[in-house]
Amino acid sequence: MIRASILGATGYSGGELLRLLTEHPGVRLQHITSTSSVGRSVSEIHPHLRDIRPALFEKLKLSVIARDSDVAFSCFPHAVGLKSTARLLKAGVKVIDLSADFRFRSPSLFKSWYHVRHPAASLLRTRAYGLPEAFRTAIQRARLVANPGCYATAALLSLRPLLRPLAIDPRSVVVDAKSGVSGAGRKLADGYLFAELNENFYPYSIASHRHQPEMETIAVEMGAPKSLALTFTPHLVPMTRGILSVLYATLKSPFSTDVVHARFRKTYQHEPFVRVLPLGDVPKTKNVSHTNVCEIGVFQDRRLRRLVVVSALDNLVKGAAGQAVQNMNLMFQRPEIEGLR
Amino acid sequence: MIRASILGATGYSGGELLRLLTEHPGVRLQHITSTSSVGRSVSEIHPHLRDIRPALFEKLKLSVIARDSDVAFSCFPHAVGLKSTARLLKAGVKVIDLSADFRFRSPSLFKSWYHVRHPAASLLRTRAYGLPEAFRTAIQRARLVANPGCYATAALLSLRPLLRPLAIDPRSVVVDAKSGVSGAGRKLADGYLFAELNENFYPYSIASHRHQPEMETIAVEMGAPKSLALTFTPHLVPMTRGILSVLYATLKSPFSTDVVHARFRKTYQHEPFVRVLPLGDVPKTKNVSHTNVCEIGVFQDRRLRRLVVVSALDNLVKGAAGQAVQNMNLMFQRPEIEGLR
Amino acid sequence: MIRASILGATGYSGGELLRLLTEHPGVRLQHITSTSSVGRSVSEIHPHLRDIRPALFEKLKLSVIARDSDVAFSCFPHAVGLKSTARLLKAGVKVIDLSADFRFRSPSLFKSWYHVRHPAASLLRTRAYGLPEAFRTAIQRARLVANPGCYATAALLSLRPLLRPLAIDPRSVVVDAKSGVSGAGRKLADGYLFAELNENFYPYSIASHRHQPEMETIAVEMGAPKSLALTFTPHLVPMTRGILSVLYATLKSPFSTDVVHARFRKTYQHEPFVRVLPLGDVPKTKNVSHTNVCEIGVFQDRRLRRLVVVSALDNLVKGAAGQAVQNMNLMFQRPEIEGLR
Amino acid sequence: MIRASILGATGYSGGELLRLLTEHPGVRLQHITSTSSVGRSVSEIHPHLRDIRPALFEKLKLSVIARDSDVAFSCFPHAVGLKSTARLLKAGVKVIDLSADFRFRSPSLFKSWYHVRHPAASLLRTRAYGLPEAFRTAIQRARLVANPGCYATAALLSLRPLLRPLAIDPRSVVVDAKSGVSGAGRKLADGYLFAELNENFYPYSIASHRHQPEMETIAVEMGAPKSLALTFTPHLVPMTRGILSVLYATLKSPFSTDVVHARFRKTYQHEPFVRVLPLGDVPKTKNVSHTNVCEIGVFQDRRLRRLVVVSALDNLVKGAAGQAVQNMNLMFQRPEIEGLR
Repeated sequence: MIRASILGATGYSGGELLRLLTEHPGVRLQHITSTSSVGRSVSEIHPHLRDIRPALFEKLKLSVIARDSDVAFSCFPHAVGLKSTARLLKAGVKVIDLSADFRFRSPSLFKSWYHVRHPAASLLRTRAYGLPEAFRTAIQRARLVANPGCYATAALLSLRPLLRPLAIDPRSVVVDAKSGVSGAGRKLADGYLFAELNENFYPYSIASHRHQPEMETIAVEMGAPKSLALTFTPHLVPMTRGILSVLYATLKSPFSTDVVHARFRKTYQHEPFVRVLPLGDVPKTKNVSHTNVCEIGVFQDRRLRRLVVVSALDNLVKGAAGQAVQNMNLMFQRPEIEGLR
Repeated sequence: MIRASILGATGYSGGELLRLLTEHPGVRLQHITSTSSVGRSVSEIHPHLRDIRPALFEKLKLSVIARDSDVAFSCFPHAVGLKSTARLLKAGVKVIDLSADFRFRSPSLFKSWYHVRHPAASLLRTRAYGLPEAFRTAIQRARLVANPGCYATAALLSLRPLLRPLAIDPRSVVVDAKSGVSGAGRKLADGYLFAELNENFYPYSIASHRHQPEMETIAVEMGAPKSLALTFTPHLVPMTRGILSVLYATLKSPFSTDVVHARFRKTYQHEPFVRVLPLGDVPKTKNVSHTNVCEIGVFQDRRLRRLVVVSALDNLVKGAAGQAVQNMNLMFQRPEIEGLR
Repeated sequence: MIRASILGATGYSGGELLRLLTEHPGVRLQHITSTSSVGRSVSEIHPHLRDIRPALFEKLKLSVIARDSDVAFSCFPHAVGLKSTARLLKAGVKVIDLSADFRFRSPSLFKSWYHVRHPAASLLRTRAYGLPEAFRTAIQRARLVANPGCYATAALLSLRPLLRPLAIDPRSVVVDAKSGVSGAGRKLADGYLFAELNENFYPYSIASHRHQPEMETIAVEMGAPKSLALTFTPHLVPMTRGILSVLYATLKSPFSTDVVHARFRKTYQHEPFVRVLPLGDVPKTKNVSHTNVCEIGVFQDRRLRRLVVVSALDNLVKGAAGQAVQNMNLMFQRPEIEGLR
Repeated sequence: MIRASILGATGYSGGELLRLLTEHPGVRLQHITSTSSVGRSVSEIHPHLRDIRPALFEKLKLSVIARDSDVAFSCFPHAVGLKSTARLLKAGVKVIDLSADFRFRSPSLFKSWYHVRHPAASLLRTRAYGLPEAFRTAIQRARLVANPGCYATAALLSLRPLLRPLAIDPRSVVVDAKSGVSGAGRKLADGYLFAELNENFYPYSIASHRHQPEMETIAVEMGAPKSLALTFTPHLVPMTRGILSVLYATLKSPFSTDVVHARFRKTYQHEPFVRVLPLGDVPKTKNVSHTNVCEIGVFQDRRLRRLVVVSALDNLVKGAAGQAVQNMNLMFQRPEIEGLR
């Protein structure tokens, strides 16, 4: 049994992680901590999880976590859990970090986008980026995994088959992605009220969202040329769950859509959680809701040699908690699909 | 008083037109026709319009329409109203056609996208395309106006300020647009059921939607080079009303966003229904809901000289019925904003 | 021209009032005040109101309001505006209060439900309760109008035709009502987040909501016996606007539904904003959305002599701002429907 | 292994049943039949079920079903499957019927509400009504189970603890229930379009819905006096899943809410799928979404001795497919919760 604890489990990703780990046959949940809700019952904050064990949010005590856990899932907002992660690693606990803290290799890039100096820069060199389809071997060996951003997961899975050998102009990429509201977490702000969002649709952080440098630097880790740069526009959809990403890129040479599609099929043929749809089929967020699956569809505007790659996933599962469990399975040599159906 | 009739008024655009014309101080509604609902009360089909006059859907009789109307709004599906439009024009009635029948100048282009031979090709040469911001003078003189498609309105208003002089690479344009469900009309199909669409989001007709050639040919009518070609991806949003369009295009030369923004401001400075937002402000569909206004925001990914132009409008108003009323006002020398606040 | 000011106009009712008064041909908006947003532009808080005048939220200065206004709309939360209302009245300004502060005649009842001692008990005796269908004459003469609660409006309009002569058992009444989320105002609380409400439905304040004593005491003012007591259950519907109320009551004697329906028709035959539907027709919130109309349908379970009266209205219009404008029209001898279509 | 087949599996209940049976460790799915979609792939109709086996809808052949199945789930609309059910039973296959065909014991009652003469009246006497909390022993022995209606399940679970000994006036009961749209199935009708339902709320079949006589006759089977009669009003909520029922009933003698609550707790203390909430807690549809749990909350308006019993369940799970699986488990002596978490 893997002994697991969750740090900062009051948000939506934390709740999804609780649901998945509770049903995981190889895991025993040890501690569930919270900063704001110490002593309150978990089912008060997550009322769909009535009979969960442990039943209460505890205060974070690193020594207790270290003593009782093989792995800790860190669900803090960015920059909050940096130090506890370092200490847990030192104490021999593996850490899967769902925040952005360890996604960039470069501390200066982290600083310029998150406005915090990174206190554990050495860890950035050894962490694995938790996208199993691209970095499975590294994850299996890693003691610290940076769980990818939800938008980054959708875009990078669309991009990967195009990189080696490079099939596209690396300056031609546009990612126009749309997310359900739970992606913002349980943030209390005017803009996330039902009455503001229902019957509303709009983009935000246009060409300035933090997942843009994440996509770019990880694409380079995946083999893209350093010149790769992409324009990213996220949107808020009046729904709770789901991300749909549309990636536009210009082919370097004219290929038929069949050929590109075959390349996608080949890249993901053994992947349990990526499903390349038959030519012409369109991914929809509802079809992958509550699953760890990313569906991908390949299209082309042949006149312009412009590929249109559509991907859909559940932002709380493959975009967060489900992928974290997939990473845990890899880190502990369990079957990759265990606890994820 | 302008004597107006509406042909085929049971759909959502027809209902919106009824609402607008009923409140228009310069219009008297004469006949409301239907194919499927002859003799039924208008308020049965449009229950929010309880006290409307005339109260009943009539059978279409062209001689009666011609005798009693100065203008007819044709709300049929494409290809259905082609002949009645020709006859009404011959009888001296002006026609505003909300379908796609007269949007293309070229009969062969019409045939290749709508799979119907165009029986009134001569009218295609004299019709005005009803986008007042681009073709005001032609509309004022026209006897037949082709009301633009909803997606085309949003995209063309985003594109227009970039065309003369040409500021962008004409092969670099991507339009990624998202529409509320009423854009599909009152079509009875599995896919439009509430239980299918709520908590769902997806694209359709990727790089193959009929508004793509509409955008391209009208852009050329607006001064774009003939080489202009764009990739268009529409999506369905789980909401009833609203279109949000994001247009990506690469600048030919490096301009600051300020300069581009100023060009947008100048282009639309006297337009009553286009509002270029201050730099940094983001258009949202809800802010223009139930109005004839199109809001536009200008952004740029400077590293790549890639403009991101966002526009939002209500697909049933500026994208259909409201624009039709705006066109009517122009055709009859009324104040352009009359009946539209 | 009626010179009007709005106090505390950042919420949803305030926004709706701004929209209605701006379009009202007999009103000049003088001051728009706010506590939290002084100096910010109105269109920043209410982005669908782009060109409104005055353009900025001001700090509340009673002397300025008194000097420049014939009427003030008080949109504060309960208990906040009690003193300013008293002072404005003293200064000769008429006040329409959208909060609960003056709805009860009894200061002790107010205290027991709102937990605040009422500092202006004498005003409670002279205020009119702003339900024009029941208290039109009093409103016309009043200097202070207590605008009804949204649920109370829906329930009282369903109840009124049954009271004189009394047709029902006054202890048999159940009101099961359902409201869109804007009824809660722009309150920042977990429970009003989109991700919490979408795909969710539930009651709250069961048999303990503050509109229950409001319904009961006003019913008595309308002629019900003092023994009348009703059970009230409100619910939150995953939509923005609209209230639907279902009132159950047992008939004292067996009447056909026709007879009861005729009584409803007669009661409201001259009312511009109450529409008793034909027998069998069902009120729906969408049919009255954005209007000041309340639709009523009458049904019966004859086996049990149990009436089922359904009413639907827009909680922000007939349930708040629209009814306030209707009251203003009455207080200033304007046509009752002016500015409300 | 229980060998199971599903007849008529293209609707929402059928899809949910497919999902549950596929994950059930004690079941092997044998045949999935359809009338309208023979030969099409299951994942085309239910795209969230990508890898299901068998993969295709078959034509219904009773001999094949009988040969290969221990149990058949009949998901036809009412009256369609009457004869196939009789034949399968004769061939030794157990049947769980999700339609209304076998819910009434009385053929004449069936005829008066469903307008079809019942051809298998003898089966009505031996069928069990599939509400395990009330009829567990009968279900365990039954060869034919009539799976309850979704509204009836919610109301009857609220009513049951009040019946023996009878605590309420049997003529005082009102059931005001609200359902997500999937309750209507995949019916293609104007009224179920997204654009009609979003931002809309309304009742239907007021005091005339078919689940009303179902509730009444089953309540009598559960021990209620024959005089019991209740008024039932169903509503459509703009959401996909979930039923919330509010039951009003007058207590015969004054009991504290504590006492009534204790009675509910006692009645359901050993039930795996009924959860009586702590006093004051409110059931919400979202908290039981995708589960087989019914949550119940008990409230009272003490002035009137009127109980308010709130219950929430997922209409497709405890209200249909989940309860059917629960019944199957009982009929085949499997653990009652198997395959239902």
